[in-house]
Amino acid sequence: MSKFWSEVTKHTEPYVPGEQPQSTSIIKLNTNENPYPPSPKVLKAIKQLVNGDLRLYPSPTAADLKLTAAKYFGVNEKQVFVGNGSDEVLAFSFLGFFNPGEEIFFPDITYSFYPVYANLYGLNYREVPLAEDFTIPVEQFFNSPGGVIFPNPNAPTGLALSLDQVEQILQHNREKVVIVDEAYIDFGGESATALIPKYENLLVIQTLSKSRSLAGMRIGLALGNEQLIEGLERIKNSFNSYTLDRLALVAGKAAIEDVNYFNETREKIINTRERVAKELKDLSFHVLESKTNFLFIRHGTVPSQLIYEKLKEQGIYIRYFNKNRIDQFVRVTIGTDEEMDTFIKAIKQIIGK
Amino acid sequence: MSKFWSEVTKHTEPYVPGEQPQSTSIIKLNTNENPYPPSPKVLKAIKQLVNGDLRLYPSPTAADLKLTAAKYFGVNEKQVFVGNGSDEVLAFSFLGFFNPGEEIFFPDITYSFYPVYANLYGLNYREVPLAEDFTIPVEQFFNSPGGVIFPNPNAPTGLALSLDQVEQILQHNREKVVIVDEAYIDFGGESATALIPKYENLLVIQTLSKSRSLAGMRIGLALGNEQLIEGLERIKNSFNSYTLDRLALVAGKAAIEDVNYFNETREKIINTRERVAKELKDLSFHVLESKTNFLFIRHGTVPSQLIYEKLKEQGIYIRYFNKNRIDQFVRVTIGTDEEMDTFIKAIKQIIGK
Repeated sequence: MSKFWSEVTKHTEPYVPGEQPQSTSIIKLNTNENPYPPSPKVLKAIKQLVNGDLRLYPSPTAADLKLTAAKYFGVNEKQVFVGNGSDEVLAFSFLGFFNPGEEIFFPDITYSFYPVYANLYGLNYREVPLAEDFTIPVEQFFNSPGGVIFPNPNAPTGLALSLDQVEQILQHNREKVVIVDEAYIDFGGESATALIPKYENLLVIQTLSKSRSLAGMRIGLALGNEQLIEGLERIKNSFNSYTLDRLALVAGKAAIEDVNYFNETREKIINTRERVAKELKDLSFHVLESKTNFLFIRHGTVPSQLIYEKLKEQGIYIRYFNKNRIDQFVRVTIGTDEEMDTFIKAIKQIIGK
Repeated sequence: MSKFWSEVTKHTEPYVPGEQPQSTSIIKLNTNENPYPPSPKVLKAIKQLVNGDLRLYPSPTAADLKLTAAKYFGVNEKQVFVGNGSDEVLAFSFLGFFNPGEEIFFPDITYSFYPVYANLYGLNYREVPLAEDFTIPVEQFFNSPGGVIFPNPNAPTGLALSLDQVEQILQHNREKVVIVDEAYIDFGGESATALIPKYENLLVIQTLSKSRSLAGMRIGLALGNEQLIEGLERIKNSFNSYTLDRLALVAGKAAIEDVNYFNETREKIINTRERVAKELKDLSFHVLESKTNFLFIRHGTVPSQLIYEKLKEQGIYIRYFNKNRIDQFVRVTIGTDEEMDTFIKAIKQIIGK
C-alpha cells in the first residue's frame, strides 16, 4: 500500500492468470490455449509486414480488420469493435455500459475477471448462484437493474446455454445491456450473433485467442448494434488511439479469412475432447458436458488438488481453483491427441488404475 | 447518444489522433513518427518469433522486457512498468494515482490526451497557462492538490525544461505524484530518470514509438519507485493480464538493446532538425527551440492554416491545431533529409520566396 495510490488502486483486487511457465518441456493444459499453431497464412501475413513500416502508427480505426470480421459474421463494419484481447474489450464494456449504483448480474462461478472489472470501476454486482448441476439459472438473470454479463459457454464449467435461453435473458433485460462473452463459442455452442439484428441491447464478445490459435497476439472483438459499438469506440478513443499493433491487425485479418484451417483445427479439438471425456468417465470421473476446449472434471474419490499437484510434478499443468463449490474440480484444456494420451496415462497412475 | 451508454461514455470527449492516410506516396510529417526504420536487429528478432508459439499467451509479467529496460535505465526491474504504448501507460497512471475531487495540474497547451483521460475518470484538472513565450511556468505547478503531469519536452511546442526545473516541481509536490511524460526526451532533453532514487513521487513515462522507430508496435514504459510501479501493476492486472503481445515484447527488448542504432538515428534527426530550423528562420519563420523530433513554427505573414492546407494539396502532411493561442502555428515532424528538402521547397513556393 502506498500513499501515492489512488482510491481505485487501493481497492483493486487484481486478476491472477494461470501459470505461464517458460519451459518448453511441459504439457500445458492450464490456460485454454489451442494446441495447434495459427494458420500458416497468418504467419505468412505477419512476416510480410515485419519491415520498416513498423516505424509508423497502426490504423487507429482498424478498418481492414473490422471489415473482414463484419463479412465473416454477416454484420456491417459499424457493428464491429476490436481490441487488445477480449480482456480489453471486456474492460471497455464494463466501463462503457454499466453504471455505479446499478447492480449488474453475473454467475457466481464464471470468468473470475468479472468481479475484478466491477471493483476497478466501482460497480455493484450480484453473483447469481449457478444451479446445483452448474447450469446457469436463466430466470435469475431477468430484470437486472444494471445489466448482465455471462460467458456462453460458461467457464470454467464448459456448459452452454441454448440460443433460446440466451434470448430469454435478452427479452427480460430490454433496457439494459446484456453481454454474452463467447470466448469458447467455436467449440460447440450456438453464437448469439444471430440475435444482433433483433436485440439492440446485445453485445457479443469473442476472441481469436482460443479457436484461432492466437493467444500470443491479443485480438478480441465485440459485435452488436451500431450504438453499442460507437459507445465502445468512445471509451477506446479516450484511452488509447491505437490498441492493436500493425502485426496484430494483419494476423487477425488473416486468421478470420482462413475458414478452412479454423474448421479443421476446431473439429480436431472437439473430437479429442469427446474421446477424452469418455475415457475419463470410464475412469470414474464426473465430467461436465463441455462445449469448449476444456473439460471440467471431478474424480469420485481422489481429491482434485492432489490430482493437480501430482500432474504438475510430472510436468503436466492443469488448472485448480481453490474456491467454494468448485474446489473438487479441475479444469483441463484439450491438447493434441498425444498430449491427452500422456495426460490420461498420468491420471491412471494417480488414481491407481 | 444511446440509452445504453454509461454516464462515463456519455461524457467522454475522445481524443482525435493525427490523420493516418494509407497512401504511401505522401510525405508524412504529421504524427511525429521516426523517418528511419526500426533497427535491423528488431526486425530479425520479431521474425524469429513468428511461429507456432503465437498460439500461447505472452508473458503476463513481461519480465524479459522489464529486465532489459531496467539495465538500460540503471534501475531495478521492479522500477519498470511496460504497456501497450505510452498512451495506455498514461491511462493507467491517471486512474492509478489521481483521485476525483483533487485537482491535478497540467499545461493548457500540451498533449491533448490529458484532458481526455481526466474526463474519462472524472478527475478535476487545472490547465495551467504557458508563459507568453510558451515555456512552462514552473512555480505555477507547485502544491497541486491532486498531482501534476507535463511532457518534457512539451508537445506541441517542443520546448524542454531543465532537470533543475523538473526537480523544483517535484520538491514542491512531495505528497502527490508528478508524472513526467518523456515521449520526446531522446531528441535533446534531460531525462528525469536520474531523479528516481531521490523522489518517490516521480513517475517517468517513455515510449519506443518515436526515438526507437516502433510506433507500429505500441510499446510504452514507466519508471519510478517500486510502490508506484506496483500501483500500475495493480491497475493493469485489473484490466488486462496480457497487454503486450509476443512480438511487441521481443521487439521492445531488441530495440532497447541496440544502443548504437538508436544513437545513430536520433543524431541524424537532431542534425536534420537543426538544419531545417535554420532554413525556416531564414525564410522569416518564428521557430521554437525544439528538443524533439518536430518543429513548432509560425510564419511572419502567411497564416498557418493556409500553409497546412497548401502542403496537404501537395501530399505533404503536417499538423495544424485549430486551438486558441496556437492556431498561428503548425507542427512539422522531422523526416529524412530528402523529405525535408521537399518540404522546404514547397514552403518556399507557398510563402512566395
